Formats: sequence, structure tokens, C-alpha cells
Amino acid sequence: MASIASFPQENLQDLLLKYRTFVEEELFPIDLKIVSGPFKKHLPDLQALREKAKKEGLFAPHLSIEEDGLGLDLVQFAQVSEILGQSPMGHYVFNCNAPDIGNMELLHLFGSDDQKEKWLKPLQKGEIRSCFAMTEPEFAGSNPVNMGTTAVKNGENYVINGHKWFTTAADGAAFTIVMAVTNPEAESPYQKASMLIVPLDNPGFKLIRNIPIMGEAGEDYLSHAEVKFENCIVPATNLIGQEGQGFALAQERLGPGRIHHCMRWIGICERVFDMMCKRALRRELDFGKPLAEKQTIQNWIAESRAEIKASRLMVMDTAQKMQEFGAKAVREDISTIKFFVADVLMKVIDRAIQVHGALGITDDTLLSFWYRHERGARIYDGPDEVHKSALARSILKAYQKK
Amino acid sequence: MASIASFPQENLQDLLLKYRTFVEEELFPIDLKIVSGPFKKHLPDLQALREKAKKEGLFAPHLSIEEDGLGLDLVQFAQVSEILGQSPMGHYVFNCNAPDIGNMELLHLFGSDDQKEKWLKPLQKGEIRSCFAMTEPEFAGSNPVNMGTTAVKNGENYVINGHKWFTTAADGAAFTIVMAVTNPEAESPYQKASMLIVPLDNPGFKLIRNIPIMGEAGEDYLSHAEVKFENCIVPATNLIGQEGQGFALAQERLGPGRIHHCMRWIGICERVFDMMCKRALRRELDFGKPLAEKQTIQNWIAESRAEIKASRLMVMDTAQKMQEFGAKAVREDISTIKFFVADVLMKVIDRAIQVHGALGITDDTLLSFWYRHERGARIYDGPDEVHKSALARSILKAYQKK
Amino acid sequence: MASIASFPQENLQDLLLKYRTFVEEELFPIDLKIVSGPFKKHLPDLQALREKAKKEGLFAPHLSIEEDGLGLDLVQFAQVSEILGQSPMGHYVFNCNAPDIGNMELLHLFGSDDQKEKWLKPLQKGEIRSCFAMTEPEFAGSNPVNMGTTAVKNGENYVINGHKWFTTAADGAAFTIVMAVTNPEAESPYQKASMLIVPLDNPGFKLIRNIPIMGEAGEDYLSHAEVKFENCIVPATNLIGQEGQGFALAQERLGPGRIHHCMRWIGICERVFDMMCKRALRRELDFGKPLAEKQTIQNWIAESRAEIKASRLMVMDTAQKMQEFGAKAVREDISTIKFFVADVLMKVIDRAIQVHGALGITDDTLLSFWYRHERGARIYDGPDEVHKSALARSILKAYQKK
Amino acid sequence: MASIASFPQENLQDLLLKYRTFVEEELFPIDLKIVSGPFKKHLPDLQALREKAKKEGLFAPHLSIEEDGLGLDLVQFAQVSEILGQSPMGHYVFNCNAPDIGNMELLHLFGSDDQKEKWLKPLQKGEIRSCFAMTEPEFAGSNPVNMGTTAVKNGENYVINGHKWFTTAADGAAFTIVMAVTNPEAESPYQKASMLIVPLDNPGFKLIRNIPIMGEAGEDYLSHAEVKFENCIVPATNLIGQEGQGFALAQERLGPGRIHHCMRWIGICERVFDMMCKRALRRELDFGKPLAEKQTIQNWIAESRAEIKASRLMVMDTAQKMQEFGAKAVREDISTIKFFVADVLMKVIDRAIQVHGALGITDDTLLSFWYRHERGARIYDGPDEVHKSALARSILKAYQKK
Repeated sequence: MASIASFPQENLQDLLLKYRTFVEEELFPIDLKIVSGPFKKHLPDLQALREKAKKEGLFAPHLSIEEDGLGLDLVQFAQVSEILGQSPMGHYVFNCNAPDIGNMELLHLFGSDDQKEKWLKPLQKGEIRSCFAMTEPEFAGSNPVNMGTTAVKNGENYVINGHKWFTTAADGAAFTIVMAVTNPEAESPYQKASMLIVPLDNPGFKLIRNIPIMGEAGEDYLSHAEVKFENCIVPATNLIGQEGQGFALAQERLGPGRIHHCMRWIGICERVFDMMCKRALRRELDFGKPLAEKQTIQNWIAESRAEIKASRLMVMDTAQKMQEFGAKAVREDISTIKFFVADVLMKVIDRAIQVHGALGITDDTLLSFWYRHERGARIYDGPDEVHKSALARSILKAYQKK
Repeated sequence: MASIASFPQENLQDLLLKYRTFVEEELFPIDLKIVSGPFKKHLPDLQALREKAKKEGLFAPHLSIEEDGLGLDLVQFAQVSEILGQSPMGHYVFNCNAPDIGNMELLHLFGSDDQKEKWLKPLQKGEIRSCFAMTEPEFAGSNPVNMGTTAVKNGENYVINGHKWFTTAADGAAFTIVMAVTNPEAESPYQKASMLIVPLDNPGFKLIRNIPIMGEAGEDYLSHAEVKFENCIVPATNLIGQEGQGFALAQERLGPGRIHHCMRWIGICERVFDMMCKRALRRELDFGKPLAEKQTIQNWIAESRAEIKASRLMVMDTAQKMQEFGAKAVREDISTIKFFVADVLMKVIDRAIQVHGALGITDDTLLSFWYRHERGARIYDGPDEVHKSALARSILKAYQKK
Repeated sequence: MASIASFPQENLQDLLLKYRTFVEEELFPIDLKIVSGPFKKHLPDLQALREKAKKEGLFAPHLSIEEDGLGLDLVQFAQVSEILGQSPMGHYVFNCNAPDIGNMELLHLFGSDDQKEKWLKPLQKGEIRSCFAMTEPEFAGSNPVNMGTTAVKNGENYVINGHKWFTTAADGAAFTIVMAVTNPEAESPYQKASMLIVPLDNPGFKLIRNIPIMGEAGEDYLSHAEVKFENCIVPATNLIGQEGQGFALAQERLGPGRIHHCMRWIGICERVFDMMCKRALRRELDFGKPLAEKQTIQNWIAESRAEIKASRLMVMDTAQKMQEFGAKAVREDISTIKFFVADVLMKVIDRAIQVHGALGITDDTLLSFWYRHERGARIYDGPDEVHKSALARSILKAYQKK
Repeated sequence: MASIASFPQENLQDLLLKYRTFVEEELFPIDLKIVSGPFKKHLPDLQALREKAKKEGLFAPHLSIEEDGLGLDLVQFAQVSEILGQSPMGHYVFNCNAPDIGNMELLHLFGSDDQKEKWLKPLQKGEIRSCFAMTEPEFAGSNPVNMGTTAVKNGENYVINGHKWFTTAADGAAFTIVMAVTNPEAESPYQKASMLIVPLDNPGFKLIRNIPIMGEAGEDYLSHAEVKFENCIVPATNLIGQEGQGFALAQERLGPGRIHHCMRWIGICERVFDMMCKRALRRELDFGKPLAEKQTIQNWIAESRAEIKASRLMVMDTAQKMQEFGAKAVREDISTIKFFVADVLMKVIDRAIQVHGALGITDDTLLSFWYRHERGARIYDGPDEVHKSALARSILKAYQKK
């Protein structure tokens, strides 16, 4: 996010309208087709849309003006992000999609000049894609202290060995940032790991498979890889920041990452809500009465509207505070929106499916895509249960200080 | 609410602190005792607190400065109201309690000069109390069109006959505003009824009983009466506004009334949440471990915090919009918060009871009082189901216009 | 329960019809009045009903024929119990109410001949009432190991000191069974306590108060006392069973106690369900349409019916197994029904209240009584959370053995 | 189901053990691979298993002994079915899978001798597969009266035209039974349609596509087709029963069909529950503590166990009654289990996924398969909402008769 907001607030409504128009006119007609795959087939079309986005001055809204972005602050970006989230292709087309956006932030803040030149710039321009290798199949992701991947210093290099999965979008990416233990003897378990850049053409890097997830392995941007690092040698200059800073940097990366997810989820909720209302009005039951006259459907519409509104206000409130006071000040808020909005998301999608009946479980609408691929929302970046416990413990700790 | 905000925003935090201090120091130590009754026994103490509130410049925060209030606008008042809501006596002591606050607003906006002089002024000063007779036992409250009470013009008077209940705080009140059918032949069912002022010493008014509700009939301010109007004669000048305006005025009264309830409920939630956290930390299970270490308790604390936060943001957002754009503009928002916050309220109270174990169902804490007396929150001023349907229909109507 | 079933199964339907008729004709017309109190005023009427029950051969269905009971086995009794549970006075009138039924079982199984003669026989005849003093305010009931009450052997006597609460129906009872630590140095914490009989006219016994619970302290049978034992001296022959057997006996008593509660709850559910359906059909909304046509109401009726049916089948299944294989064999089942049925009970009551609207929160129906006094169902005899953890741990333990 | 039970009850436990062993030893090791597709590749292996099932005397348990089945009654079959349901391939291997089982029942009861010879016998032997074309994309399935497909008598033939979807397992089937309007002028809308047999090599039959559902189109047995009938000519002897009997026959077919689904779902629940428990014990969090020690996980295990138990008891109770009193007598029960068990199924699957974390959303376990393909359980054969309303209306109707 632009550290100094430079986009004039008075122009925001106009900008949002531009995004809305782009998303509705350019993406809505094709996004179902694209997520139905194969993804690579659609790359030229997507590239053309990226060019169009650049031409219209809408590309990379999260970057500062110096970086050829729009200079939006977090609160402004949140509003754009909700619009983009209404299409599974929204963030991608405007180059502010995970995991790239997180990697851009990380390199922007902590990358060396060389790293910025070599990896950040082409990423910002949308010339390459990247990924982030953190989760390991053998260890519970909710406990980042346990990690099997190691990076051993050997002269001017690091030798990396390890097994990762859920390395989102590795297929087709130019490089990954990998989290690996460099300092196994560090006193604090939170100071054992480091982050390193690994170009994916490195012979020590193996993409084992795009993991079949909820019925499809996907490919390219729409995939999550299982990967291995086998005596993977990278120059020591590929270290991001200092040795042992891995967790600290991950926190920096995950905090905003979670709020980005929440923003996007609200976008999904709105699209799904819209589908639900339209279907309720269009689908006729007996005697020409639309489904919308059924009180159960009305309950779902009302509850969904209330919950989406609550989600948006909480996310915006968190963005506002994060912008003003920094990521540490909103740790509780981030945990709160992470489990609250993920729950709302799944409930709204589920209701919309039920309203669509048999159609809802087919891949003829986007509902199935989101029902399947957002089930992970309650798991990735910390499962609900971890965030709830963390929030409660933080609240209770404050009590004990009183 | 002061139609023109005149309380300086920069002094708000100080003011809120004063209210918080007053409520915590003066009300928390005695409120359980007061709600345990008999209420009338405590009237002198409460009167003393009202005097103290006046001295400290905290009385009647919702009134304009000309009316000896504080000139708070709705958003400012919402923040005060949440603090007052933490004690069952909060709004009463500061003279901004239902049903008086609604009657004050009604008379302020639509009362004749004489009505204002005779009824509004002493009400604003806290010299008298009032009540509002609308709900009838024989008719579903959710359908205001059905109403059995009539007021027949007879020369210079109206003769009122009818049966009402849930006339909150009638016991001890000086007057009631009664809703009665004056124009049975009106074309629209919404133009049949009118509002009239009836002094309660009128021989045609009968307080049949304080209805036993959830285990206690209560008395005075803490009661809900069943009443009858039997050939109850009042001068025609007791009509508020015009004949047939009853529903229009009720809408004016109920809209803000609902937001007032929501503000107060958040206050209850906060007090209850606080009790829950303290109990969790204090109550030891086996081996000296506090209840707070149990994950289920942590889940409840986290979920409650999230839901309370969502409630507050939605209520504040509604207050902000209502202030800016008027009551009509926020009809959907009012319905939304009415069912959303009532649901959160009941969930938070229920969890707090469970955390308190056997103690939670005794009357030794306020939990039982709120568990019992706020069960009505999902019913009064429109049950959840009516608000959900109304919200959904309004949303769907907008779709059909597109 | 009769250890050997002696009631002929082929006569059961006739017997159930008799109970149903008695309950509907004799109890339904007066039970609301009785629970509205004061209870003692109604004692003569209740005594007359008990005599009538005796005359009709319906008294004490759980006792063996030798004990002037009906000789029902547990499965047969379960079906009677559900019928009795439909009225708050059902079990009382037929002398199979808690806590007396538990005490009868305990004394029947473990009482000395003298204890049986002196306490059990008059209890079985309904000449006296009893109570059970176990829960202590200072210790979490879910952990029975922690207990402050002591009984110190002093020659031929025990001297009891301690503080108990939720001693149900102590007001008016002839004796209590008290749980007290007799062997503080026992190796296992489960072997520290014993059960002793204390006549309530003992000068060392103090009934401090009937605890106000959910809005009313009640009295006599409908009350829960806070009591103290202050140098309370009882002869050593008042010990039930052996020293240190307290927990073992409590387990014997609580297991069936929990199933008795569940049977009764299903009775409440059925009565409440019946009220809900009748109200839904009777209450008219707009244009003469009954509430029953609203889909939300239909959902509640359907869900309630499903959940009640599930509850009944699980309770009957547990009773069947307990009868066949004993209490130990159904520990998991008992935990299961305890939390499952309590949850169903509260949901069904809550829905019925909502269907009744404002009437539902008054004390003009039984709904308010059950809403208030059965909130404890999720707490007493082990809160939901404890039973869930116990069940899960037992299931998981079996896995580890595999 | 065998109309006369001929399988000796005393041998049932042995039989169940055989099925359990077969399923665990033969199917568990390969079922994940099979559902991962492509299905046709696995047909030889499946065929071998069917032969093995025949050899072991386990094939077609639902058929009478005369039909080379096992002669199980419904209650016996329910217990077998639960075991088979634990594998997605269970019912298929033993030739008692939907939609074939329903078609077998239909032809058994209503088929002509010729139809039996030509279609039923090879179906019973597992030599061919069949399908059932009822649902239409343009009409709400919950209202069977609306139907666009027609069958017009033309001499000795019917000419069928129409558009169907969710014709399960059409790909690879030998024939379909199709529901089509033959008597558009019939007085009752329930007497307009008929059922006809259409061999799938008929040139008027078009399989448009295997509908992509929840991420995969599948093939053969694991698919749901969209099909068209275009001037599809079949001999009039392909009519099942009488003209206009379509709905009556569908009711006969759907009632048992729903109970079959419920039996199978309980099997899924048990397999998923088992996976959840094992994962909870195996997965380590910090400091070597297994996930199983987390109270939230324990809650899920306990609640799942309770709900599965409730489901089983209700399904068995319904099977018992259906067997004794026929399908009409259990209409309410069928509706009850349809929505109750479907809900439990989805909840148990959802919890198991959450316990599995990231692994749970991959296709590396069966969880994803069931999460996706059983979402339809709340929709097919009548969505929850329709069954709830039907149940409630039936209950309320009985009240009105009183």
C-alpha cells in the first residue's frame, strides 16, 4: 500500500465507478469461463485486459505513483478491492492479487536494492508472477515454530532443503519466497527462520504437483503447488532482511494479507448476494409465484445483507486503524475480521446455492467455484479456532493487567 | 434528539468519561439491588441520583440546550447511551429512558403549545413520567392495522374505549399517549388511528395489573401494565397532530425508538461481556486452572467481542445516516440492526450465563435480569421475523426497479 | 426403578392413557396457577391429587410392587415420565420427582435397614420430602473433587461443617443427604467424601435462603436453598454405605438422575410444541391468515418435531441399554443425551415463545416458567461443555486402544 | 426390498461383519483413487469386485432370494446400507446403488412381464445400468406439476420431446425411465404424466453433456447428465403401468429413495467421523500435544457423535415403520429424516475438514469428494425447505382435525 496516500479523496467515487464498470463489463462476461479452465488458454485474453487496465490508469492501484500505481491508501484500496473481489479474476487483472501483492509489499519494505531491481520491478509491472512457500504438509500451519525446511549457509550461498505445499500459483511463477530455518539454535523459536528468494528455474526446485483441491488441480495462477527444495543453492544475497527475521517478516506480510483477503471476500459476498436476489425474483414456483415470496428466502436475504454490512464496517474500521496506527495496533481486529468474515462468506455462499437449487451445485455459475475454493478461507492464514483463541487470550491478558 | 447539534465534538471524550465514571461509581454498586425490587422503595435514592446528574450537567443529554439538555446529536447520544445501557438504571437516572424519551420527541415535534407546556416540560425536567398505550392483547402487534381501541368524537371531547397491554411503566406515570381508531372509515388502514393524551387520573382509565413478565410483575418504572379505557373522556385538544395521523406519528416514534434500544443493548452486551471475562479469569477449575483457559470459553469471548463490535459499528453507521438523511433513509438499516443486535444481545447474555454456571441463573447477578427481560428484544417494536421480511422485500423491490 | 420389571408390558398402553388423562384433566387446568405461587397455598390441593393418584393405582410408578409402586422398569417408566413431564407438577403428584426419586434409589440400594425404615419408607409413601446437598458456591460443580464441607468423626457422631447451595426443595423437606469430606487424606480424590443423612430439624442445619433464581425465590418444593451446616452433629449411623464412598454413590445417583431429567424434558418439549402449534393456528395476522402459514413458523415446527423425535429415540435407547447392561455401559449415552436434549429443550421453548409474541414473555403461559427454570438444564448435573469433553475423550480413548 | 423378509435375523450380525470386512479390505484402499477418476479406467477392477461379491453371497442384498438377492427386509438392509455408504463405491459394487435400486423396485412392482424380462433381469444381475430422467432445468424440481417434457401417443408408439438434467449416471446406462406429460388435459395436475422406458441407443435420445458439478463432470456411474429427447420414438409397451400414473409411481419410487439416501449418509458420517478422530489423535500441535486435546475439537467430536446417533435412530425407526405400515404411513418421518440427516451430514463433513486443516480441502482424502458431492443432499429429492414446510403442514393439519 502506498505509505503516503496520494490519491485525492475527492476523486475516489469516480475511480470506484471506473473499476465497477470495468469489472462488470470486462470480467463478469468471461470469469466463469476462465475459472472453468484450462487457465493457460486464457492468458492472452487476460494479458489484453491488463493492458486495457494500464491504459485506463487502473493498473496496480495499491502501488505508489512513483511505482506506476495509483497511490491509494489502505482505506481507499479496500473499497477498490471489494469491487475487484466480485470477480475471481479481478485482483489478477489489476495486478494486486495474492500472493504477489504480499511479496511486493515485503520486497518494497525489506528487499535490497538489487532484489528490488531484479524481482520487485517486473512484479510491479506485471511482467512476472511470484509465490510464497511457507506451509509444510508435515507440520500444523497454525504453529509456525515447527518447520522442517532448512537453509544452510555454505560460503556465499544457502543450500535449501525442504518440503512445502499450498505454494499458491507456483506454476508459472518466476520466483518464490521461501521460509526456511537458518538458525536452529536461536533462543527464541521465533528467531530461527529466514526468508529467501528462489528463482523457480533453479535446478534444486521441484514442482511436484499442482495439488488437486476441491475437485481440480487447476494450473498457473489458479493452482496451489506441492514443491520440494533439494539441495537448492541460492546466493546469500537472496536473503530478505536479516537471518532469523523470517517470522517477523511473515507477520508483516500476513497481517495485511489477512485484511486483503477480507476485502476480497466482501466482494464475493456482494456478487453472490446479487445472484441470490436475482434468482429469487426470477425462479418461479407454483402458480407463477417467485421464490422471493418465500419467507425462508427472505430470511436468508435479510441475514446475508446484515452480515455483509457488519463485515464491511469491521473491515473498513480495521483498515482505517491499521493505516493510522500500524499493523500491531490492529492485531485483535485482524483476528476478528479473519474468522468473522470467513464465516459470513461461507454462509452467504451456502444460502445462495440453496436458492439456486440444482443449478447451484453445477459449475454453470460461480457459486460452485467459490463454495469449493473459499472453504479454505476458514483455514488458510490461521484457522478460525486459532484466531478466536488468540483474540480471547489477548482480551483476557488486558484484563489481568488492570 | 437535538435537531441542531450544539455539543462541541472536541469535548465529547471528556463527557463520555464523566458518564462512565458516574455509571460505574454510582449505579453499578446499587443496580442489582434496585432491579431486585421493590422499585418504589428505591425512588428516593434514584431521585437523589437524578439531582446529582443535574448538578454535574449530565441530565437529559438528548435534549437541546434550550430545553436544559446537553444538545447532543444522535451520534453523540449513541455513545452516551451505550454507557448508560450498562446499568438497567442508566437511562432512567439521566431521564432519557423509554418510553419517556419517545414521548418527549413526539410532543416536541407534534405537540401543541398547550400540550408542550402541560406535559412535555415536566417530562423533560423529570418531574413526571409517561407511558405509551399501543399494543393490544387481541391483535398481533406486527400488524398495526388491526386495532380494537376507539376514540369517538363527542362534541369537544373524545370518548375512548379499548384494551391495551405492555403499556410500559404505566404504574406511577402521569399520563399516557394512547393509539385509538378515530376514523374507521378512512380509505387507507394507515389513516384510521390517532394519538391522544390521557392523564392517568382520568376515571375512565383502569390499570388492570402490572403484567407478570418472566417471573415478576415489577412496579412503577420497571413494569408493563395491562390497562383499559372505559368510556374514558378527554378533551379534543388532547389529540396530538391531526386525526388519522396515528400511524404516521408512530412511525416517527418507533424508528428512533428502535435505534435507542440498539444503543442500550450494546451497553448491556459490554457489561455482560465484562462479567464473562472476569468470571472466566476468576473461576478456578481443577488444579488451579482458570476457566479462561478452556477453548470453548475463549471461543465465546472471541465471538462475543466480534459480534458486539459488528453491532456497534452498524448502530453508529445507522445513527450517522439517520442524522444526516433522516429516518426514512435508514428504514432498511433500522430493520437490520433491530434483528441483528437483538440476536447478538441474547447470544452474549446466554454465553455469560453459561460461563457463570449455577451462579448465572440466580438473581445474584444482573445476568438473570437481562436474560429474562431482554428476551422481549426479539419481539417488541417488531419481531425479528417481521424486520427480516421487511428488509428483504425492500431489497428485492429495489431490484425490480432496475 | 424396579430392579425386576413386574409390570406387564401388554398393559402399558392402557396405563399410559390413564396417566395422560390424569395429567391433562387434573394438572393442566391448575399447573400455571401453582407455579405462579405461593406454592404452600396449593399444598392441600396437591395432597388431594396425590390421594387420587393412589386411589387410581398410579402413585409411585417407579417403585416395586412390594414398595406399593407399579413395578415399572426403566423403559416403561421413561414413557410415563414423559407424560408427567408435560406438567411442572406431574412428577410431584405421583411422587417420582427429583430429588426424592434419587434419594429413594440411593437408600433403596445402599441404606441400612434402620435408614430404610426411618427415611425411605415415609419418602416412598409421600409422607415426607427430602433434599440433596452437594453443590457448593465456592467450588466449580463440574469438578466434584474440590469440596469444602467436612464431616469429622467424633465418637459415635459426625460433626458437619460446610456451605452448600442449590439444595433443591430443602424448604419443607424432612431430611437432606449431604456430601462431605470425611477422609481428606485418602489417596484418590474420589475417595475423600461420604454421604450422610441430616434431618432438617437438626439445630446445626441452617436454611439461609431460598435462592432467587430467574426472578423468583419460590418456596417449598419449588425452591433451591442455600444452606449451612454449622457444627451439625449427626449419629454415625446416618452414614450411607461406607466412608469414602460418596463419589461412587453420587455416580450411582447422578447417572439415572440425568436420564430422569431427559425424560421429563421431552415431556416439556411436547407440551411446548403443542402450545406452539395451537398458537400458530389460532393467531391471525393480516387478512385473517393464521401465523401457521408463515414459512418461518413452519420451519420451527418441523425442526422442533425432528429434534424432539431424535431426543426421544436417544433417551429410550439409553434407557433400554441401561436397563439391560447397567449404568456404566451407558456413560457415553448419558453424556450424549444430557447435552443434546437440554439443547433441544431450550430451542423448542425459545421458538414457542417467539411464536407467542408478547404473550410468550408474560407469566400468563407456562413458557416463561420453563424458559427461566430450565435454563439451568444446560448447567446442572454437569454443564454441556463438561459432558461434551467427557464424551469426546471417551471416544478418543477407545481409538487409542485399537 | 424383499417384500417378505426371508433373511434369518439370527444371521444378521455375521452378515454385517462380512460386509464390513469387504468394504474395509476391498474398497477403502481404492475408493479415493476411483472417485479421482477417470471412472471408466477402473471399470474392470470394479467388475472383479462385483464378481467377488457374488461369490461371497453378498451381491444385491436388497433383492429377494428368487431374484438371486439376500432377501433382506428394509430394516436389515438399512444396516447393510450404512456399511456400504462408508465407501463411495459401496452400493455400486453390491448393485444396490441409486438410481438402479429405485428402477429395480419400480419395475419389480409395476413393470410388465416383458419389461421385467428385458430390463429388470439384466439390471438385477448387474449386467446393465439404468437412469431416471425427471428433473428439468426450466422448472423448479420442488413442484413436480410443472413439466415441459411430453410423450404423445402416435399409433403404437409414443413420441417424446423434452429437456432433462441431473439424469444421474446416464453416461454408460442401457436405458432410462423418463417422466413425461401424456395427459395434459387431465383434471388433476398429478395425473398428467407417465413413466416410459427409453433405451439410450434410441436415436431420439441425446446425452448433451455430463454436467460439471462442483468441479468435475465425472463420467459413467459418477456423473449427472443433461439430456434431450428429440422426437424420440418408443413403443407404447414401454409405458410403465398406466397413462397418468407417473406421479403416483414417482412417489412410490421417491419415498424409499429418500430413506436409501439417509442410510447411505449415515455411512458417510461414520467414515468421516472416523477420519476426524484419527486425525485429531495423530496431528500434533505445539509441544507434542495432539489436536485431540483442544476443546473445540472435542466439542465437534461429541456433537457429531450425538447427531449421527440421532440420525441413525430416526432412520431405523422410519425403516421399521415403513416396513410394518407402508410408505404412506411414514411420509412425515421421511420428510423429517431427509432434512435432519442431510444437515447432520454436511455439518459432520464440515467439521472433519476443519480438523484436517489444509489437507481437508485437497483431494488427497475423501472429505473433499463428499463435501462437494453431498452438498446436493440438501437439494435433491426435495430441498430442506420443502420437506420442512410439508412436515409442518401435515402436523398442523392433524391439529385442525381434532
